[in-house]
Amino acid sequence: MTVKRGKLIGVGTGPGDPELVTRKAWRLVSEAKVVAYPAPDHGDSFSRQIMADAIRGDAIEIPIIIPMVSGRAPAQAIYDRAAEELLIHLNAGHDVAVLCEGDPLFYGSFMYLLARLRDEVEIEMIAGVSSLVASASAALRPLAARLDVLTVVAAPLDNDRLREAIATSESLVIIKLGRHLDRLRGLITDLNLMDNAIYISHATLPHQQVMPLQDAPDDAPYFSMILIYKGSDPWI
Amino acid sequence: MTVKRGKLIGVGTGPGDPELVTRKAWRLVSEAKVVAYPAPDHGDSFSRQIMADAIRGDAIEIPIIIPMVSGRAPAQAIYDRAAEELLIHLNAGHDVAVLCEGDPLFYGSFMYLLARLRDEVEIEMIAGVSSLVASASAALRPLAARLDVLTVVAAPLDNDRLREAIATSESLVIIKLGRHLDRLRGLITDLNLMDNAIYISHATLPHQQVMPLQDAPDDAPYFSMILIYKGSDPWI
Repeated sequence: MTVKRGKLIGVGTGPGDPELVTRKAWRLVSEAKVVAYPAPDHGDSFSRQIMADAIRGDAIEIPIIIPMVSGRAPAQAIYDRAAEELLIHLNAGHDVAVLCEGDPLFYGSFMYLLARLRDEVEIEMIAGVSSLVASASAALRPLAARLDVLTVVAAPLDNDRLREAIATSESLVIIKLGRHLDRLRGLITDLNLMDNAIYISHATLPHQQVMPLQDAPDDAPYFSMILIYKGSDPWI
Repeated sequence: MTVKRGKLIGVGTGPGDPELVTRKAWRLVSEAKVVAYPAPDHGDSFSRQIMADAIRGDAIEIPIIIPMVSGRAPAQAIYDRAAEELLIHLNAGHDVAVLCEGDPLFYGSFMYLLARLRDEVEIEMIAGVSSLVASASAALRPLAARLDVLTVVAAPLDNDRLREAIATSESLVIIKLGRHLDRLRGLITDLNLMDNAIYISHATLPHQQVMPLQDAPDDAPYFSMILIYKGSDPWI
């Protein structure tokens, strides 16, 4: 007798507030017998923290340990191993819910598992509230309106690409700030856009910060972003 | 004795599946005594349909009727009147939940109410799952990865701006397709990107469609989009 393989479920956990998880994500995780999530080599997994009250007491938990090496993508070998481990449970007929901060497919590491397992098992994706829209809500302003061009760029890109993106968009979001904040402030000042720039970190969490970029702290975390709006007044 | 004014709550209802609503949005709407939502002049309000099972039987419902005039933003007078009507309830001390498809601040009409009421009353924003991330989940592929530049453009933009956006991005999302689909297919064919383009409509709904752009139906609805990925292979 062959066992029906389980399903791999990519679960968006939203930006941080456990109430900003979708009803579907909450239900599927509370039903899941196997739950996997990325975790740092020291400290807690953020996506697990968000979903802590949904995870069953008897669930098998699989932390995927991602060593925090500044500025480098983790070795692909980590995902090779993780995919193999998940496949053991999938082959045994269990669905596996993989927790992903924000949305699983918006700059997330879930794609590395998807790439390795999509030809092996059934996949179900549960989209989540991304940090992008959570930050606009925190800043209380439209992310984009009407025919605005909206561009998302990562802070490690060089100034030429950032300048190009700013020049061709009405609304710009710079993600993954971290140690790049100082350079970005210089660039944005040069472009005379400091008055249009808002800094947001930890959107939807109790320690959320929202302020004009010029007032931002020097030690921006990796999960912080800048919103720049230079289109026509979105308010009218 | 003065009454404490109510709060205006902008509620993202997600892309369509009522289970893709956040727990917070569901809770706040099920508690709300006054619920407003955009509605066409004929037919049902999409955001109300999504939240139908959360709205209390005794809630006061305020449809904001938006005449569907193809290609034109609705007259600002509609939002002037809607803001006045909501203010009556807010002044009476009631919170008002405004339902918004997807996320309220991602190309949404909520900003028109926000502009009119943000200096009058307390605002609370509940970010939602946007059609952007829902479409990537439907297509089972990353929206953007690592240092990709991700650009969102609206189909009514002229070909020069679309070409510029495509040239400067690894990942491009074209929203608000409607009657522009044919022109876009021509443009994307000219740029030799047809093999990289996916068409998605009604993401997360039972009648969701996901297919290569070359197979897309000629009558694309307004709420459909194209994903184009031209970056380095995101799967590795």
